[in-house]
Formats: sequence, C-alpha cells, structure tokens
Amino acid sequence: MLNNQVLISKAQIKSIRLLHDKKHRLEQGLFIVEGEKMVAELLKDASFKIDSIFSTEDFLTKQSKALKDLASDSIHQISEKELGQISTLQTPNKVLALVQFPKRADIKIQAKKKYILLDNIKDPGNLGTILRTADWFGIDTIFCSPECVESTNPKVVQATMGSFFRVKIYSCSLEALIKQNPSLTVYGAVLEGENLYESTFETGGFLVIGSESHGISEGLKALLTHQIKIPNIGMAESLNASIATAIICSEWTRQIDFRKKD
Amino acid sequence: MLNNQVLISKAQIKSIRLLHDKKHRLEQGLFIVEGEKMVAELLKDASFKIDSIFSTEDFLTKQSKALKDLASDSIHQISEKELGQISTLQTPNKVLALVQFPKRADIKIQAKKKYILLDNIKDPGNLGTILRTADWFGIDTIFCSPECVESTNPKVVQATMGSFFRVKIYSCSLEALIKQNPSLTVYGAVLEGENLYESTFETGGFLVIGSESHGISEGLKALLTHQIKIPNIGMAESLNASIATAIICSEWTRQIDFRKKD
Repeated sequence: MLNNQVLISKAQIKSIRLLHDKKHRLEQGLFIVEGEKMVAELLKDASFKIDSIFSTEDFLTKQSKALKDLASDSIHQISEKELGQISTLQTPNKVLALVQFPKRADIKIQAKKKYILLDNIKDPGNLGTILRTADWFGIDTIFCSPECVESTNPKVVQATMGSFFRVKIYSCSLEALIKQNPSLTVYGAVLEGENLYESTFETGGFLVIGSESHGISEGLKALLTHQIKIPNIGMAESLNASIATAIICSEWTRQIDFRKKD
Repeated sequence: MLNNQVLISKAQIKSIRLLHDKKHRLEQGLFIVEGEKMVAELLKDASFKIDSIFSTEDFLTKQSKALKDLASDSIHQISEKELGQISTLQTPNKVLALVQFPKRADIKIQAKKKYILLDNIKDPGNLGTILRTADWFGIDTIFCSPECVESTNPKVVQATMGSFFRVKIYSCSLEALIKQNPSLTVYGAVLEGENLYESTFETGGFLVIGSESHGISEGLKALLTHQIKIPNIGMAESLNASIATAIICSEWTRQIDFRKKD
C-alpha cells in the first residue's frame, strides 16, 4: 500500500451506495465516476473537483503521478471485494471516484454555435450516448428539460465514455430558452417534417430532440422554425433518440463544416 | 378468463426462466419476445412461429382476434405476479411470447443491396439498435461474426422495437462472406480512413462495423475496399458502434436514394 492512504469504513460504503440514487446525489452534491479509463480522464480535467477516490492498489500505482495533487486522506485503497460493494457496474473496474456537482456559469448563447435541446429523454444510456456524440461533433453544450433523466445518473456518466467532462449540461425550460433567443433557428426531429437531406442548415442553432415515446411536446413543437424528418425507406416506425440525434448532427456537420459539391 | 386458456405451472416458469440464458435458448430453439407492442407486431408476422403466449387478461381480450389462429393450449392467461416471475424486463408489460428460432433460407447476395456486417459486437443494446436502424434505412439483412452477442438475447430483441421480425440476421464468418462475393464494395468504419463526407458510395455493398472496444479485426480490415472515417470536430475518442452505423447508413442513403446537388 502507498503511504497515507486511508481504508474504507462501513459507513462510507453505505454512504456511497446511497449515491446510486438521484435523491441522495442531489442532497450531497456528489456523483460517481467509475473505471480505469473514466477516472483517468477525470484526473486530467481540472474543472471537476474530486471529493474522494476508492481504488484498488493496481490503479493507485499506475496513476500515482496524476493522484499526487489530491489530499492523501481523500484517497482510499480498497479491495476488489469492497469495490464490488460500492460500484454501480456489473463488472467493477479498479476504481470509483466521488465528484462534486459541476458549478455551471451562466451561459451566453452564441448564434454561430450548435446546441442540442433534449425534451424529456428518460433513458440514461440515450443521454450518455447523445453527450458522447455531441462531443464528437464539437457540440459542447446540451440543454435538458427538467423531465429528462438526471444527468449525473451513473449510467449516463459511464455511457459518455469521458465526454461527460467536456460537454456542459444545463437543466432548464426549453421553451423559455428558445423564447429568450428568438434569432436562433430551431430544428426539431419529427415524423412529419421536411426531408433531412433536402434541408438547409444554418451555421448555428438549436436542435430539439423529443422523448423516446412521445416525440417533441406540443408546446415546443410550436416553437420549431424547421421541422425535419429523417427519411425512412424501410418499415421501422421510429429511430432511437440518440440515433436520430447523431444522424441530424452528422448532416448538419457535413453541410456546415464539410460542404462540397456532390 | 376466456375459454380454454391454460394456466402456468411451476415447471413452465422454471423452463421459461432458463431461456433468459443463451445456452438454453440454443438447446430449446426458443426465444422470448415481450411487451404489448412487440407481441402485437409478432402476431402480425407470419414468418415467426409462436410456441406459446403467457399473457394477462387485458392483452388477451384486446388481441383476441389476432390470437384466434393459435392453438388454444398454447395460450396461457397469467397474473401480473406470474408475468414478473418469467419476464426479462425490469417493468414487465402484459405479455411474454416464446417463439421458435427462425429458419433462415440460404441467402443470395445481390450487388445492388446494402448489407451490414457486424464484427464482434458484444453489447445487446447496440445490436438491437443497429437492427432497428437498418430496418429504418431499408437494409433487410445483417451478418454477425460468430463472436457477436447471440441475436435472440432478450435485450437485443427488445431494443429492436419490432424490427427483429423484419431484418434477417445471419451468423457466419465475415471474411468468408466477403471472399465469396469479390465483386462487392466493402466499406468499413475505421479511425484513420477517408472522410465520410468525401466518400462516394456505390448503390450496394457491405458495410463492416467493428467491435465496441477493438474496432474491425485485422483480417477483416485487410479485405475492406474503402476505409471510412466519420470526421470528428470535438474531443471524443470514438463513437458508439450503433451511432457510427447510423451515421454511415444515413450518408449512404442520402447519396444513393436522395442525391441532389447542394
């Protein structure tokens, strides 16, 4: 064992397990990041404040340099068995970190930037995958309606594969956001809109993605300036919300960032 | 209770629970389809043979017409509690059907059709979402390498949202498949390929998607005629496999089925 590392108490195990639930995360202002790769990314990112780390010896040794700036009493060397007791994963992976909720500065919307607005996205895997996809396409800010799955849900965090640390998530009324920024174009994925491939995108704007089961809510739909449909050739009735987001972001990127005659 | 419906025995409950596991599905040649919407789709599809249905009264009443062609001793009216005992879902939904493995006829590859080849896709949610996306884009045949997650895994079936009944899945050596069809173009998603948006697609061909953690295996990579990369503007290291599939299928569809000058 490295010097000074503290062990884990039964009370701590209980307290971490409580953070699997949204209520306790919101109360304590802490969320969970797990696994070798995710925590390595976290350690590189100065904008998130780490409360404590619970790690097997292996990871502590490997990351000793990155860990040296943390207070030694916040680093806990634990066994695989103890990790299993606190982990949210089916296959726990070396390390679990408790991280403080990010403090988000007030945001100023920029007309030339792309933003994704998520209306009532309930599935944590979908939200996480959308964050990862947004990060791929250089979209660094996402707005979630208050009905969306809580964004520090462990399944969200893990599905982002590290993009959680780079893409800023705000929870707010999407209608209010759109009304406060009337000059921005508002695209929305609907089943009865204009053919995506015949749509013309502006450099920046809002892309609204509706819920997995009900699509975009009526109040928001009325605020769309462009209703877009991904044309279907086959028989599927709908696309997964994260898939629809990715296809539209790809076409938007193609038109704006890689436009060429074809 | 409707006439003639049989109840469920403890032995049946045990036998259905065994089908949650691949080994028993392969041995018995049966897999599970669950939920009101999925089973309604199944009942419309004559190409799958239903072994038995375990349903709450509600669904039986609602679907009595669609159920009338099934042998009455294959229909079991059960309680919500019994459904919970056999279900693979966190929130069981009215009905569970046992279905015989589809018998796939030998396939003749057509040069003008699009095919997706999945190399070592392990996540059932990914495979299910890929099937749903393929169905959306009119791609009706998928080839899985033998290392892929077993295609009748309940999480695969449920994630397809009904597309499971329309998209044919074959498990085979992808290398052998490509070598047997040397005239087809073989596209592959890699991290060091040609810009997707500058690639030119043929009408038909094979699209190879690699595993979530290792990408396309070396042997297969050597068989690609076009290495394609989805350009990234942001920081994410990779995309989810189902997202990458969707983005490439969308661009392929745009070029072939919706080409216009832009």
